[in-house]
Amino acid sequence: MGNDDAMQLGERLLSDYLSPLGYRTAVVGKTHNRKSREEITSLGIDSNSNFARFADSGGFEPYEWHEGLFPDEILPDDHGYTNYLKDLGYEEANPWDRRANSGIDEKGNLHSGWSLRSSRYPAAIPEAHSETAFSTRRAMDFINETSDQPWCLHLSYIKPHWPVIAPAPYHNMYGPEDIKPVVKGGGTVPAHPVVDAFRQQEYSKSYAREGLRNMVIPAYMGLIKQIDDHLGELFAFMRSKGLMESTLIVFTSDHGDYLGDHDLGEKDLFHDQSVKVPFILVDPGSEADSTRNTSRNDLVEAVDLVPTFVEYAGGKVCQERVEGRSLLPMLRSTLSPDKWREFAFSEIDYSERGPRELLNMPPYECRATMVANHEWKFIHYLGFTSQLYNLSEDPQELNDLGQSPKTEEVRKKMLDALLQWKCSLKTRVGINYNYLLGQGPKRDEEYGIIIGRW
Amino acid sequence: MGNDDAMQLGERLLSDYLSPLGYRTAVVGKTHNRKSREEITSLGIDSNSNFARFADSGGFEPYEWHEGLFPDEILPDDHGYTNYLKDLGYEEANPWDRRANSGIDEKGNLHSGWSLRSSRYPAAIPEAHSETAFSTRRAMDFINETSDQPWCLHLSYIKPHWPVIAPAPYHNMYGPEDIKPVVKGGGTVPAHPVVDAFRQQEYSKSYAREGLRNMVIPAYMGLIKQIDDHLGELFAFMRSKGLMESTLIVFTSDHGDYLGDHDLGEKDLFHDQSVKVPFILVDPGSEADSTRNTSRNDLVEAVDLVPTFVEYAGGKVCQERVEGRSLLPMLRSTLSPDKWREFAFSEIDYSERGPRELLNMPPYECRATMVANHEWKFIHYLGFTSQLYNLSEDPQELNDLGQSPKTEEVRKKMLDALLQWKCSLKTRVGINYNYLLGQGPKRDEEYGIIIGRW
Repeated sequence: MGNDDAMQLGERLLSDYLSPLGYRTAVVGKTHNRKSREEITSLGIDSNSNFARFADSGGFEPYEWHEGLFPDEILPDDHGYTNYLKDLGYEEANPWDRRANSGIDEKGNLHSGWSLRSSRYPAAIPEAHSETAFSTRRAMDFINETSDQPWCLHLSYIKPHWPVIAPAPYHNMYGPEDIKPVVKGGGTVPAHPVVDAFRQQEYSKSYAREGLRNMVIPAYMGLIKQIDDHLGELFAFMRSKGLMESTLIVFTSDHGDYLGDHDLGEKDLFHDQSVKVPFILVDPGSEADSTRNTSRNDLVEAVDLVPTFVEYAGGKVCQERVEGRSLLPMLRSTLSPDKWREFAFSEIDYSERGPRELLNMPPYECRATMVANHEWKFIHYLGFTSQLYNLSEDPQELNDLGQSPKTEEVRKKMLDALLQWKCSLKTRVGINYNYLLGQGPKRDEEYGIIIGRW
Repeated sequence: MGNDDAMQLGERLLSDYLSPLGYRTAVVGKTHNRKSREEITSLGIDSNSNFARFADSGGFEPYEWHEGLFPDEILPDDHGYTNYLKDLGYEEANPWDRRANSGIDEKGNLHSGWSLRSSRYPAAIPEAHSETAFSTRRAMDFINETSDQPWCLHLSYIKPHWPVIAPAPYHNMYGPEDIKPVVKGGGTVPAHPVVDAFRQQEYSKSYAREGLRNMVIPAYMGLIKQIDDHLGELFAFMRSKGLMESTLIVFTSDHGDYLGDHDLGEKDLFHDQSVKVPFILVDPGSEADSTRNTSRNDLVEAVDLVPTFVEYAGGKVCQERVEGRSLLPMLRSTLSPDKWREFAFSEIDYSERGPRELLNMPPYECRATMVANHEWKFIHYLGFTSQLYNLSEDPQELNDLGQSPKTEEVRKKMLDALLQWKCSLKTRVGINYNYLLGQGPKRDEEYGIIIGRW
């Protein structure tokens, strides 16, 4: 799925599971998940239903929906964050672009955030007016406003993200001395064609410029530090309202960023820089005291969150559709440590990305799948050879063993795991799980449909 | 998908493509494809829309929808074929069961069609009252009634099917001398566990009874001959109306039947008996004259029919969703013979079938996929070893080479093909194909979203 893809109309979303449990389920910030308004209209679905009203914002009530990328041409007429800036007196037609996402130099000149070279400057607004600060306040508004029912808030901060512009003091809180050395080079085999095509993209090539990482990464780190401070504020607010004792908190991200590692920028492909995300869960209940402040090295996936939330809310996880596993048993030590997941999977489809044209690949064949365990990371491409990294011996993923004769058995095992996963995905959403187990509604034979009896 | 599974609500069906082209798209007979009424209601979809009205009959207008299995408990109150029999004077509450699908002996005693032993008797109705004859007449009614617009009729005869009861004279038109010898035995490796579990099912075991094939298969052949005669009638009718010059006709089936071959009954698994189906196309246009009355050995699949129909109707095949390829170029010799499909695929999920319990398999893992070309048939199972047959040397599929060291390279190639297919299925239905090709709506960058520029 790309940012602009409509998903299958019948796909069940978090809100579909939480709403029947009495939850108000809303988003502050971005979600990038939508259903097709054209399909909704053509089926005559009630346009006042939550299904239709929340179709553009991933099923979440768009309490303060803010997709976070608003050049002039696509800035909506009625947009919360822009309205907020205008109310503050910013006079530009698009203060999101000209203020919040532009840098300002000592002489007061503006520098567009669409150029990475501007990331050395602070944003042309004070921190309190930034998207991050606005989102935090709107989250508090939502919580204040929702005292009468349980809620689930998807607080989805835009930053750190393009344009890489941080408000003061975060723009220069870090310097080159704070950043990790670049990860690149190594390996004796030629670069993989798909990886190479991503390296040809502008966002990758820019990072090869002398000094660019030293300028951009500190600003990026500043944006992270800003989030950190804001979460501190949010948690203090929640504590003051007694909500820390009753709220499950998950901190995570949708992807990482290469920031120049492996000669790449952006978020595609499967190196740890891109595919590994922060994942912090706080279960406030005493059942979770035994694991509090501990960390684990298990292979969890974002798909585990829906069942975690549903179980926390007291619901029953939909066996016919949900692929993930609730993390509550892990948090509450009711799971034996060896009984988790053997492999983690990740998929990309670069059909709408630059490399498709460069590689002359047909759409729908621009697909790659990662299978990883703690020791190996295997990547299967349509139309190209596979990649394999030994994460134990080569944690920086520099030596591609995808063609090494010595790793044939490993590749076979990873390929088997990939196929096992692909073939067992829950495609039969329309048949009752308990029925399959023989516990559900009557079967054909009980109705008198007797097949093949002498 | 099983007979009872609801499909994804947003799945596009043949009628979704043909209706906008002005076609009336209806079913006479069975379809076994439905969308969930519960989902339709919960989304507030207009219950008078065609989408809702035709949701139980696969999107087809249920002109004479007749699922064909009606023991007493599930016989609907208002059912066309039953009403027809009652109007004729049959007095039973369920004449479908007691008459059309019961045999009658010389003394007038009835024998339930739910027992295979009854297949020696003629049906307890005259041929003219049978399901097959009824369906043919209803097809003619539909055609007569639809002179003002183009139409597509899914004439889906129930028979040959359980209960295996043929009306006279078809019940004894064939005898043991007409049937092919049973295909079984051979092979030096132990039976595959999943195949073996299917062999334990009642419908398989029955066929092992002495003399059963000699009794049942002639009746089954009679039911086929009856279809043949009825299609002759239908085509004569169409000829009389001048419709043979303007109607694309496809004759096919949804599956075969083991009828005792390989010690199996019914239709599961992937031997040719089950997976290979009749496939006759008549394109009336002069463009197809060059291929008229010829046969081909290409690997076509049922999914090729939707694009064939859409193209014949003058529509544009939906690139974002349709997996098959239009067969018109093949019929019209505008396709070079070498440019078709390299592999054919078929999938089963036996989660709701008897073998699941016997094998103690979890639901959603009861899956197997066939990959075949002209030389090899490879079957991948979740949880079990693979099977491989050399169709050139062993056309009866008796020698399973799935574990043979000599065929490792072949298995690798077939596994690659399986993965290629699985990974390239069209899951991104919500993004425009032309957009992916760079010909569609504007891209992010044209709107001013510039990612990673220095």
